[in-house]
Amino acid sequence: MKTPSSLTLLTESLRTLPGIGPKSAQRMAYHLLQHDRDGALQLSRALAQAAETIRHCALCNTFTEQVICDTCQDGERDTTVLCVVETPSDQLMIEQTLTFKGLYFVLMGRLSPLDGIGPKDIHLEKLITRATDGVVSEVVLATNFTNEGEATAHYISETLKARGLRVSRLARGVPVGGELEYVDAGTIARAMLDRRAT
Amino acid sequence: MKTPSSLTLLTESLRTLPGIGPKSAQRMAYHLLQHDRDGALQLSRALAQAAETIRHCALCNTFTEQVICDTCQDGERDTTVLCVVETPSDQLMIEQTLTFKGLYFVLMGRLSPLDGIGPKDIHLEKLITRATDGVVSEVVLATNFTNEGEATAHYISETLKARGLRVSRLARGVPVGGELEYVDAGTIARAMLDRRAT
Repeated sequence: MKTPSSLTLLTESLRTLPGIGPKSAQRMAYHLLQHDRDGALQLSRALAQAAETIRHCALCNTFTEQVICDTCQDGERDTTVLCVVETPSDQLMIEQTLTFKGLYFVLMGRLSPLDGIGPKDIHLEKLITRATDGVVSEVVLATNFTNEGEATAHYISETLKARGLRVSRLARGVPVGGELEYVDAGTIARAMLDRRAT
Repeated sequence: MKTPSSLTLLTESLRTLPGIGPKSAQRMAYHLLQHDRDGALQLSRALAQAAETIRHCALCNTFTEQVICDTCQDGERDTTVLCVVETPSDQLMIEQTLTFKGLYFVLMGRLSPLDGIGPKDIHLEKLITRATDGVVSEVVLATNFTNEGEATAHYISETLKARGLRVSRLARGVPVGGELEYVDAGTIARAMLDRRAT
């Protein structure tokens, strides 16, 4: 019993999506062919269009179709503060809090030596150029609080402080609504060390 | 903060894949644009090609690029027995057991009135035409042993028996390697009712 070659090709191509194994890829291929050919064609066009038109913002490195993204073009923002995040999703989360009015730099990754991801892959040169433009005075590091995110923050912090910039990091501590009984010891230890005068 | 429109379009198109929610779709879109643009273009081509070239076998209804699929064209098979399965994956599983040398009919679904899937959606007319070709003498129902699969088998069984065909169903019972202590009561009850002389 032979599977038609274009079906095999589709299943294998779907496996390039992150988190999709052979069974899921097959299920997706069957679903698209059986129930949603229009969806398959639309996805095909969307992939081609995105792969061709999406580039990186010359200033903040996020995805955009322009040379400079809308956020960086926004004249209302505080150009003296730069917030460094790992991904566009992280940037979106911070935007939703309405607590930050400065500009961003999106690393599009994090340092991860075990996966072979070094300073070049997180566009560190571009960040240094951006942060030392003479206007930026403070860099807020908002990488994740995972081991890799922390290492990335530490590395960037050392690099930028050596160039005379003020560098800060998002506060660590007990989450809002957190009950001490259910918060892990590492978080409480950090909250104790970073305690603030009231 | 505005997301570029072709990125939004890509994320929304990825959501048409079964089992993919907004977060996964966004993660996939970012991954493809950041790390695998070639993969995105290849997937785009594979989708377009499959949607254009894949059709249904005129005899067994499975996916194929020809009018009649390779299995149905295979001259070595027993043309008097027809095995009815829900999906091409099910057909593949049965093929792997090497216990069936007849031909197949793939429903490409199952009856599911709650989801609005009726006899027309599982190509019942095509199955009736196929099974009453004068050569087929027995139809083996190998739909899943779920509620919907059982209902589908029952419905097809009634329809085909009314046309004078011999209809059988895969045996139900304790799975190979099963320990009675850990097998559910429904399965044991069925195995007791269907017990065989040794």
